[in-house]
Amino acid sequence: MSDKDNQPLSGPLSGKDLARKPRGFPDKRESLIHAQARLVETVTGVYRQWGFEALDTGAFEYADALGKFLPDADRPNAGVFSMQDDDAQWMALRYDLTAPLARFVAEQGQGLGRPFRRYAAGPVWRNEKPGPGRFREFWQCDADTVGAPGFHADAEMIAMGAEALRAIGMKPGEFVIRVNTRRLLNGVLDGVGATGADIRLAILRALDKLDRLGASGVADLLGAGRKDESGDFTKGAGLGPEEIKRVLAFAEAGADTRAMTLANLAKATGSTEEGKAGLGELEAIALALEALGAPEDDVKIDPSVVRGLEYYTGPVFEAELLREVTGEDGKTYRIGSIGGGGRYDDLVARFTGETVPATGFSIGISRLAAALAIMGEGGKLDGPVVVLNLDKDNPGVALGLAAELRRGGIRAEAYMGASGMRPQMKYADRRNSPAVVIVGGDELEKGTVTIKDLEIGAQKAKAISSNEEYREARPGQIEVPRAGMIEAVRAIVEAQR
Amino acid sequence: MSDKDNQPLSGPLSGKDLARKPRGFPDKRESLIHAQARLVETVTGVYRQWGFEALDTGAFEYADALGKFLPDADRPNAGVFSMQDDDAQWMALRYDLTAPLARFVAEQGQGLGRPFRRYAAGPVWRNEKPGPGRFREFWQCDADTVGAPGFHADAEMIAMGAEALRAIGMKPGEFVIRVNTRRLLNGVLDGVGATGADIRLAILRALDKLDRLGASGVADLLGAGRKDESGDFTKGAGLGPEEIKRVLAFAEAGADTRAMTLANLAKATGSTEEGKAGLGELEAIALALEALGAPEDDVKIDPSVVRGLEYYTGPVFEAELLREVTGEDGKTYRIGSIGGGGRYDDLVARFTGETVPATGFSIGISRLAAALAIMGEGGKLDGPVVVLNLDKDNPGVALGLAAELRRGGIRAEAYMGASGMRPQMKYADRRNSPAVVIVGGDELEKGTVTIKDLEIGAQKAKAISSNEEYREARPGQIEVPRAGMIEAVRAIVEAQR
Repeated sequence: MSDKDNQPLSGPLSGKDLARKPRGFPDKRESLIHAQARLVETVTGVYRQWGFEALDTGAFEYADALGKFLPDADRPNAGVFSMQDDDAQWMALRYDLTAPLARFVAEQGQGLGRPFRRYAAGPVWRNEKPGPGRFREFWQCDADTVGAPGFHADAEMIAMGAEALRAIGMKPGEFVIRVNTRRLLNGVLDGVGATGADIRLAILRALDKLDRLGASGVADLLGAGRKDESGDFTKGAGLGPEEIKRVLAFAEAGADTRAMTLANLAKATGSTEEGKAGLGELEAIALALEALGAPEDDVKIDPSVVRGLEYYTGPVFEAELLREVTGEDGKTYRIGSIGGGGRYDDLVARFTGETVPATGFSIGISRLAAALAIMGEGGKLDGPVVVLNLDKDNPGVALGLAAELRRGGIRAEAYMGASGMRPQMKYADRRNSPAVVIVGGDELEKGTVTIKDLEIGAQKAKAISSNEEYREARPGQIEVPRAGMIEAVRAIVEAQR
Repeated sequence: MSDKDNQPLSGPLSGKDLARKPRGFPDKRESLIHAQARLVETVTGVYRQWGFEALDTGAFEYADALGKFLPDADRPNAGVFSMQDDDAQWMALRYDLTAPLARFVAEQGQGLGRPFRRYAAGPVWRNEKPGPGRFREFWQCDADTVGAPGFHADAEMIAMGAEALRAIGMKPGEFVIRVNTRRLLNGVLDGVGATGADIRLAILRALDKLDRLGASGVADLLGAGRKDESGDFTKGAGLGPEEIKRVLAFAEAGADTRAMTLANLAKATGSTEEGKAGLGELEAIALALEALGAPEDDVKIDPSVVRGLEYYTGPVFEAELLREVTGEDGKTYRIGSIGGGGRYDDLVARFTGETVPATGFSIGISRLAAALAIMGEGGKLDGPVVVLNLDKDNPGVALGLAAELRRGGIRAEAYMGASGMRPQMKYADRRNSPAVVIVGGDELEKGTVTIKDLEIGAQKAKAISSNEEYREARPGQIEVPRAGMIEAVRAIVEAQR
């Protein structure tokens, strides 16, 4: 690729037209960034407490090492961002944190020691069509146990995921982690004689619509087909009435407790090898969840769960936000999936040939941060105290006072620039400053500073009717000896918290 | 680009060969990750305390919006990673945090409010030749003030940068921030009649080698040329003896205090317009540094500083680690530059036509984290307490005990897997576990747990000569009632801190 190629094909842009960014890579401001940082800190804190250690991999992997496991890979490069390295090998930005982990484990070999338990937090990239709430860059926070075959390792992931969601402030009933296993589903498919890839896919797609279409709609899709309100016809999977009944009984086995759901499933899955094996997995997980004290509300067995990533080989988990998210604008938003995971026993084997049992859980940090920001729960952020700069020729006074305030532990800045008083006050308002510090010629002479409490000032100003009265009253304004500045400002800042 | 293009040209890899990663994107383990997280937290904490607010932009920008400001852009795509978006526009991964900020400010226009003071921390990517200690992905932590023309804004950046380096543990004399301005240098170049781009570049390159070649080597490069030890000849800038003397006097003006350096510079730069303007900038910065209380040791005026990025228009700053970095392997490493910045008044004007004065400072987090990790100063990390899993058929016991320990505030995990006792103990050693908890049939029956202090155990074991004696003494091992487990484990963990 020559340097000249690195130009927009539509001809060089200039001026305002240049100031644009690719869709799906949003700029983030204070409240969202703080919500995200708090989430990462809390979730990695829980992972760490459960004994996991940190491992970060780079943004790029070789494309063939990442593999192609993304769902709906109907776009070029299978949904990833890729480019050629100097040596003509294709590199791609990671689309999740799991595939790079598998590469790492394979590369390290036996020297790594097993089980290897790691956590990671960072951005991943998907080359999907961007849209409202659909980003091409987002943060995930993962934990994985590599080298542990037992289903108690899966149960640990699930219980830990629930604890992490509790730790970030989710109350009982505000979220659920649903657990299923591929083998159970395979057993049902085997049981109804659906052995071809096409019919299996048709059944999976029908099941995926249970929430939206209800049992009768799904029954149509499992059978001859379904005509929607617009008259469009979707061809069905072609199952007979008995088979449809069994698939539906399976899909609707969910009950109030994990034990009851398992009992329903035992009836629905019948006697196929895969079905029995799947049921065994879920029973082992349920026992371990019990030992870990995972509440029934937090974790449910739900046979309708299907995870999109194609590397899963056994149990799969899906975390969903149930709480209704109402914005400060009064609108209600549906957040849906906020994480998930599962067992991926064959991912390392792609490299080494050796099956390395592995399981993991991933929390969608960006999605959760957006939800918290919408709800206005990102946490209140204090603005800085602004020291006005009124002596244009000598900014040293304001700089020195701001430095003094910071040494006193107060977030503070000197106004940068040489504007008049009004724009400087406006600036302090925009920054949500708790107070401004004013030192004019008067104060310099007397050895004092004037401090204006912007919250009290705003309240008092409302009660004042005339400009003259305002000037007289100087709402929220006090003058103190310079030596008393830090104490006086601190009192104002703390009173506003 | 078709999906088929997304394949290595050398034919599909398989097995072990697949398990490789592109060079320059290192995997990071515990100590480095924690050093980095601590640095980001500390540095952004200082930026925040100085009144800056958080703004993050995405990884991708349009290539033309980023512009080409990287030094040594002799590689394809001018040193950036770029690819075409769906609509054939070229996108590139950000190579720093400043160029995306300029795009953001231009896009927001007047609505943003000025001055706009932001901080950010995140990865940047450079498509450079990777090598030892040279990465293609690294973290920076920046602060910028946009919309402030005064040089006190530059001084604030410098003093804040010094405070941030102090905050992460640098002692006086372990680092220095060197300050210069492009205009001063331009003045010197004008003064010696170096008006052509080629001769100016030749002089800059010569000055850049002052550290390595000393004054006489640089004098050769400023004059006719220089032959190095291997006999290779480098053509010089062709200056006469008087001109060489003036350039060297300028380059060597550095003195113990900022005031003395400025006095030397006043003599060396003569009377060119640019020289006088540059001196004025540095004098204004020195005054503001005084007001901010920046120690002479931390910040020096140094006319030899040249920053690589081509968007700087005035004062430039360079932070260097002076402290010798000695690894736990006894080797000494040179870290060099750990940050820098400067004024870039024309970067927003690329988009809007309007000159928007701006200045910023950037700390190289990855480089500093590597230095801390080399010095073993990343901070000690406690391993998790491991509850051994000795009842293969019922892992619930170990899971439950680990959950109980965590509820008691102790980092703990149940061993995942069904190995014998020896591999489980080996695992705990590898994880630097302070202790293991053992519950066999014996303990279950008695309602007790056995706790082994791994640190004391290792010490005592050294003094024991025979296997029999070892089994008898059970070094560091205690048996307590199950109800006393948390307290006993906590005592061990805290004693080891």
